[in-house]
Amino acid sequence: MNEDTPVKADPGREARSSIPEAVFARFKDDSQLIGAVMGLLPDGKVLVTKATDQQIDMLLENFEDIMHSYDRTAGTMVMTQQGYKWPDSKGNIGILSAGASDYFVAEEAAISAEFMGLKVHRCYDCGVAGIHRVEQAVQLITEHDLDVLIVVAGMEGALPSVIAGGIKTPVIGVPTSVGYGTGMGGLSAVLGMLNSCAPGITVVNIDNGFGAAAAAAKMLRWLKGPRD
Amino acid sequence: MNEDTPVKADPGREARSSIPEAVFARFKDDSQLIGAVMGLLPDGKVLVTKATDQQIDMLLENFEDIMHSYDRTAGTMVMTQQGYKWPDSKGNIGILSAGASDYFVAEEAAISAEFMGLKVHRCYDCGVAGIHRVEQAVQLITEHDLDVLIVVAGMEGALPSVIAGGIKTPVIGVPTSVGYGTGMGGLSAVLGMLNSCAPGITVVNIDNGFGAAAAAAKMLRWLKGPRD
Amino acid sequence: MNEDTPVKADPGREARSSIPEAVFARFKDDSQLIGAVMGLLPDGKVLVTKATDQQIDMLLENFEDIMHSYDRTAGTMVMTQQGYKWPDSKGNIGILSAGASDYFVAEEAAISAEFMGLKVHRCYDCGVAGIHRVEQAVQLITEHDLDVLIVVAGMEGALPSVIAGGIKTPVIGVPTSVGYGTGMGGLSAVLGMLNSCAPGITVVNIDNGFGAAAAAAKMLRWLKGPRD
Amino acid sequence: MNEDTPVKADPGREARSSIPEAVFARFKDDSQLIGAVMGLLPDGKVLVTKATDQQIDMLLENFEDIMHSYDRTAGTMVMTQQGYKWPDSKGNIGILSAGASDYFVAEEAAISAEFMGLKVHRCYDCGVAGIHRVEQAVQLITEHDLDVLIVVAGMEGALPSVIAGGIKTPVIGVPTSVGYGTGMGGLSAVLGMLNSCAPGITVVNIDNGFGAAAAAAKMLRWLKGPRD
Amino acid sequence: MNEDTPVKADPGREARSSIPEAVFARFKDDSQLIGAVMGLLPDGKVLVTKATDQQIDMLLENFEDIMHSYDRTAGTMVMTQQGYKWPDSKGNIGILSAGASDYFVAEEAAISAEFMGLKVHRCYDCGVAGIHRVEQAVQLITEHDLDVLIVVAGMEGALPSVIAGGIKTPVIGVPTSVGYGTGMGGLSAVLGMLNSCAPGITVVNIDNGFGAAAAAAKMLRWLKGPRD
Amino acid sequence: MNEDTPVKADPGREARSSIPEAVFARFKDDSQLIGAVMGLLPDGKVLVTKATDQQIDMLLENFEDIMHSYDRTAGTMVMTQQGYKWPDSKGNIGILSAGASDYFVAEEAAISAEFMGLKVHRCYDCGVAGIHRVEQAVQLITEHDLDVLIVVAGMEGALPSVIAGGIKTPVIGVPTSVGYGTGMGGLSAVLGMLNSCAPGITVVNIDNGFGAAAAAAKMLRWLKGPRD
Amino acid sequence: MNEDTPVKADPGREARSSIPEAVFARFKDDSQLIGAVMGLLPDGKVLVTKATDQQIDMLLENFEDIMHSYDRTAGTMVMTQQGYKWPDSKGNIGILSAGASDYFVAEEAAISAEFMGLKVHRCYDCGVAGIHRVEQAVQLITEHDLDVLIVVAGMEGALPSVIAGGIKTPVIGVPTSVGYGTGMGGLSAVLGMLNSCAPGITVVNIDNGFGAAAAAAKMLRWLKGPRD
Amino acid sequence: MNEDTPVKADPGREARSSIPEAVFARFKDDSQLIGAVMGLLPDGKVLVTKATDQQIDMLLENFEDIMHSYDRTAGTMVMTQQGYKWPDSKGNIGILSAGASDYFVAEEAAISAEFMGLKVHRCYDCGVAGIHRVEQAVQLITEHDLDVLIVVAGMEGALPSVIAGGIKTPVIGVPTSVGYGTGMGGLSAVLGMLNSCAPGITVVNIDNGFGAAAAAAKMLRWLKGPRD
Repeated sequence: MNEDTPVKADPGREARSSIPEAVFARFKDDSQLIGAVMGLLPDGKVLVTKATDQQIDMLLENFEDIMHSYDRTAGTMVMTQQGYKWPDSKGNIGILSAGASDYFVAEEAAISAEFMGLKVHRCYDCGVAGIHRVEQAVQLITEHDLDVLIVVAGMEGALPSVIAGGIKTPVIGVPTSVGYGTGMGGLSAVLGMLNSCAPGITVVNIDNGFGAAAAAAKMLRWLKGPRD
Repeated sequence: MNEDTPVKADPGREARSSIPEAVFARFKDDSQLIGAVMGLLPDGKVLVTKATDQQIDMLLENFEDIMHSYDRTAGTMVMTQQGYKWPDSKGNIGILSAGASDYFVAEEAAISAEFMGLKVHRCYDCGVAGIHRVEQAVQLITEHDLDVLIVVAGMEGALPSVIAGGIKTPVIGVPTSVGYGTGMGGLSAVLGMLNSCAPGITVVNIDNGFGAAAAAAKMLRWLKGPRD
Repeated sequence: MNEDTPVKADPGREARSSIPEAVFARFKDDSQLIGAVMGLLPDGKVLVTKATDQQIDMLLENFEDIMHSYDRTAGTMVMTQQGYKWPDSKGNIGILSAGASDYFVAEEAAISAEFMGLKVHRCYDCGVAGIHRVEQAVQLITEHDLDVLIVVAGMEGALPSVIAGGIKTPVIGVPTSVGYGTGMGGLSAVLGMLNSCAPGITVVNIDNGFGAAAAAAKMLRWLKGPRD
Repeated sequence: MNEDTPVKADPGREARSSIPEAVFARFKDDSQLIGAVMGLLPDGKVLVTKATDQQIDMLLENFEDIMHSYDRTAGTMVMTQQGYKWPDSKGNIGILSAGASDYFVAEEAAISAEFMGLKVHRCYDCGVAGIHRVEQAVQLITEHDLDVLIVVAGMEGALPSVIAGGIKTPVIGVPTSVGYGTGMGGLSAVLGMLNSCAPGITVVNIDNGFGAAAAAAKMLRWLKGPRD
Repeated sequence: MNEDTPVKADPGREARSSIPEAVFARFKDDSQLIGAVMGLLPDGKVLVTKATDQQIDMLLENFEDIMHSYDRTAGTMVMTQQGYKWPDSKGNIGILSAGASDYFVAEEAAISAEFMGLKVHRCYDCGVAGIHRVEQAVQLITEHDLDVLIVVAGMEGALPSVIAGGIKTPVIGVPTSVGYGTGMGGLSAVLGMLNSCAPGITVVNIDNGFGAAAAAAKMLRWLKGPRD
Repeated sequence: MNEDTPVKADPGREARSSIPEAVFARFKDDSQLIGAVMGLLPDGKVLVTKATDQQIDMLLENFEDIMHSYDRTAGTMVMTQQGYKWPDSKGNIGILSAGASDYFVAEEAAISAEFMGLKVHRCYDCGVAGIHRVEQAVQLITEHDLDVLIVVAGMEGALPSVIAGGIKTPVIGVPTSVGYGTGMGGLSAVLGMLNSCAPGITVVNIDNGFGAAAAAAKMLRWLKGPRD
Repeated sequence: MNEDTPVKADPGREARSSIPEAVFARFKDDSQLIGAVMGLLPDGKVLVTKATDQQIDMLLENFEDIMHSYDRTAGTMVMTQQGYKWPDSKGNIGILSAGASDYFVAEEAAISAEFMGLKVHRCYDCGVAGIHRVEQAVQLITEHDLDVLIVVAGMEGALPSVIAGGIKTPVIGVPTSVGYGTGMGGLSAVLGMLNSCAPGITVVNIDNGFGAAAAAAKMLRWLKGPRD
Repeated sequence: MNEDTPVKADPGREARSSIPEAVFARFKDDSQLIGAVMGLLPDGKVLVTKATDQQIDMLLENFEDIMHSYDRTAGTMVMTQQGYKWPDSKGNIGILSAGASDYFVAEEAAISAEFMGLKVHRCYDCGVAGIHRVEQAVQLITEHDLDVLIVVAGMEGALPSVIAGGIKTPVIGVPTSVGYGTGMGGLSAVLGMLNSCAPGITVVNIDNGFGAAAAAAKMLRWLKGPRD
């Protein structure tokens, strides 16, 4: 009854916007998910995000040969066609997370950034109630010559504020849904970051690790590399 | 048509709950405000909060002789009957505010606390984006032997989190309506404080300097003084 | 791919802020949970909060020897190293809850407070629609020489207001997610407590029994004990 | 350009629903307001609610001869045609308000109820933080043989809960916009009343004194009087 | 560790407020639920509301002998001690529901009202988009001499408005969580009823069939019967 | 410092989308408003919406010669170049409003629709609590051969539901900000319309009379006229 | 105990409002669902919407003989009595969806529209970040002579804005619950569509494919066909 | 009574975070505003944002000699000490705004960016309903060799989505409070941008032109310049 192909790949997206298309697994049934992966395979690599355990199992069964790696907590799967050659790194970014519970978002950001050709330095569960945060961040930036910091935090989302006031590196805040009660699924954290008194923080959607990685990739490819 | 007295003083409140009744000026017309002040005058002292410039002028005209002091930005007025003797201080508290704009709330807290017999040490516009915050707070606590800290902040309301994780002193957070856009009149700040990852912070209503002072007074009168 | 240790203990937290770090189990997968417990074991005692039945079972299997006690409804587990000696009580607190359904929060507060070295007196399901509440509270305070009251309530969250207006003891309100419809997961209760007309109530996050206990512990250790 | 009459009276409303139509002044310009009053004058009596000072002045100028009474704080004006005979009272109701600031809503309810033929007993500024509330209410009910209680409260809106659990009389809760910050213009109060743990409270819109009076009038006319 | 009895019956509630205590099953674990039922059994009858299928099965196993009736969709169970004699009916009420999906709330109201001694006339799935509604309601009222109408509706919650403008009988609106999207779990319906342009409607919490029945019972017992 | 022209007309909009561009006056300072009007004058006619009294006065001073008509309550002004010839009517629409207070939105819709070449039949202050609504609407439709109904309502926004269930004509609902308290500036009305149980109602933004007219114009120009 | 039939068909609805009644499966238990289907079978055809997999299985078992088609992702089932003859098409509509994940809503709209006698042209997963959207839409409109466009989008819901500014065809926007975090179950999308700067878009509830189809059917039957 | 200096400059902020401190005028009384300006004058230049007409007049009177420029619509004032030498430009940015009404935010961003040493290319009132947007943006980027785009939009906030999908340049979205009704003071726009389907957009607070400029400055100073 439905003559239209329900899932269409957008192969020109990376060329147009510098960000490769990824497959957002949530809300997709199995056939839609397989269709989306098939549509992007010709690019040589595919990134799936927000996948459930069941979806990861299903994908493992269907695409065993080209699977590269997956992380059940982060809900991500990376696939590569045989012989796919990753491009050289476009720059170094740091990913800090406030609590251990924020891992699933921080790691989605990290895996997405690596997929986009960035080199990632992780500093997870930095704790949030102490004051040695800025020192740690400064040290991380210096040690690894970081270009951009992605700072991931749930609950009140204060970590980006604390960090950004003390460093010159651009900071992208990623609020997470970690918390409960008045945390309201991450709303408290996103409001905290948008209202930060440390100017210059920019913010993406709750739990949107992929989006933060994309923003970092845009900055690095455009501002540091040759503008192709 | 209305045979009932619309404004009734509750003279026993201080004896019952350790907190003297105050006159909340907002929503009151002039005759209600005068009635409320008159009802509390027999106690020897009256505190008016959240008063507009017009209300302060009106009160100045009507109660010139017993006026003690007022602050137009804080919206407060203190009156004392001639010969009223302030009780000895029950303890020392510190009031920190994040930005200069938070003054009207911080000072409402300070004046209310002084009215309740506490000695107040102020540290306003501490800035919020730096990291020397905790050192300053620790120094303030040590120098003045502070018992409780009231920390006042608008926007993302992160200052109590930053402070409380590094000190042992009880911290009462007061979110303010300072901010704009997604600050939503202080909602962002109150959510930030309720979701703080620094355990042990307690919170009062947005702009509720009086309530924070009352909480501090309860702690000091009950926990440090003789339990009358 | 992730060379960073995802879970890091903050052993200095108790020395710094008087509150021992606890393990917030929600949002953690099994390996993160085990890692967090392992990180804190050197302190001699560990408190796990907001654990599901499955997580409790998993912890029982892994840490059977050092398990001290657990409560499936409260979602808590306490572990102690052999020979661990609990410190002397720092003070007495009372925990009142409005309804039987609020037990899981009230008991989280009680267990957390005991873990922090306080002696706890419980009065659960006090009912909320009657007027003998204040008398009961006053009696409890007098009988056990209570220093602080934690008052736990869901639905409209009115119990702290009713209690606090009639006593001098500091009151910490804990809103719970008990309710439905316009209760909105505890928002109605938290708003009710923040807007209480009984001045001096301070409030923590919805269902945050641990936070209320931490606030009480800070008051007692700092205001009553020697300031180490 | 607009051939339609913009304001139309609904003269049959009282006969149909037992509640006379009233003129809601807010959002109406002067010509609409005059038109609405004119349309209802043939009924012999007119009630205007939520009128500003300017609207009251304008009405006084235009309808001086038939003006009966007005209250600037409550925003109400009652007019009667010469010779209009008020019907006999249909019953006794009590109106309690929590704070003096709630007067404007409580008195709107009182004036509306009197306009609908009820006898009203007022008890304003009952205070809300004490415990003698229920005793006062019981005494009021007994003394005046009250049929229904309208309980008016802003801030956390707890007074109806406290009252209703101790009496058999039907209680209609009226939340008010009195408060600030997280009071959110009365939302906290309306949520508090809707989530009351005292079953049997019914609620009307924020500041809707007229609606509460109408509900009381419906109960008394239908349940106590002859069903015409 | 917890020496307090977590569930306490309030046997005097019916005498005090005319509404018998009921057992709200949600949020209660099995032992709390059994405890609550046991506490109320001495009254001769027990009503359980908001019970899941599992809770109903558990109660059937434990209280088989005194079970009177239950409704899995409404989530209610009524138990009576042998020989319990229901009191005479205090009056007739009608319960209208807008859609078939609202059954679980309408029937909770009906069963609760019968439990409180009222005679209930049901008119479910009246449809909401037609105009014969008022005629049906008027007919129902006349035919059965109804004292109060409870009108149950989800989605936009318009049915009480449509009905109440055309009849003199008091109308209690019960918003339900039926709907989706911007219905937001019943918020759209509760807002619709609170803002009704048909004055005199009073409203209870979303899905609160028990509360609506309690309000009706209070009206009938107090306004129609002898005031004991 | 700003070399860019801040206000740019989009002359091709009507050709592209069938809706002429209008000037939304709110948020514009005088020079922006004049610039916007000047940019559209070449089209022969200009519609200004949401203008304040001050803005209307300012426009009257500046464009006296080409002023056609204005309505201060609706906040609209229509201007036409000399010799402008209005096109023939594309169809008949009806505009119903629930209350007299909704006039400012209903009339914005009416004036906008006339500006777009539709013939408008008004029926304002239809009352909302009665049941003769559908009959009136049916009569209006039949009498004037109406193609589309725009139904304007504030408060609970129920009128479109009541109407749409009984007629075949397409209904566009326009929620208004009329109301108070939980009406929340029109949110209650927009939720009511979006959740209508009468399928087929479509909705525009709160107070968006212009948008409703544009939707009606699109239906009539495209569905009834020749598709140019 | 409940003598009333809980599910009542409204057979006259199609004649009255041009939209056939459908069975909204969510919130219905099996017996209610079967009852609703039985009530509508005499019309010859039945449409079930928002059905779960379990409900579809249950219906397949009970109505195997008259089943016509179903779509588990869309949650729809169409049944026809033997010999039922579909009416001739009333017009052509296009349904565009932004992402593959929006399929379940777009297809509910498509199946509902076909059920109402419209011919549907689908264009799903059009992508939303590109600019060839309008060209595609224009081409679709021209190629198939489309009368109305239904545009389905989740997340920020921008697709209708982008499309509607460039075409003359009426556009009905359907926000979907696809998204996460601040998408808040579709609230971001519905707000985006209601605030569109492209005038003339009308909006239905989140995920309300059926409602969008009904609106399109009303436009086509009334504006293009004979007015029966 | 208040021995503390209420306004404290943070002279080291630019060295620490690369962003100079600015004076946020809203919520400040005259003496606070003057104090803040005085505190920053030693830096040679001062930027005041969100100033009202009255505040600008007051500053003009007090700092006439060092005033550089101001914009009443944008609410900004720039002051420079005599002889202050602006640093060389660090890069080129483009600022696009959707509507003429968004000018006050776009120009705050532009003036702030210029104050931070960036060269700004403006493209205001780009219209939002057309499709030539991306072409215009691409042309702007190419022509002026832009490094970053700041895209300012109110209402549904769709412009950043439309732009970002077609270009490689980093895009910072600035939602504005322009709109009405469900626009909710910019909430609709900020949600639209956070939920954008064009990955890589980052967002700042509603109306936060200064913050967007700060983010752009951080990217350019750090990523393009030498890392001092």
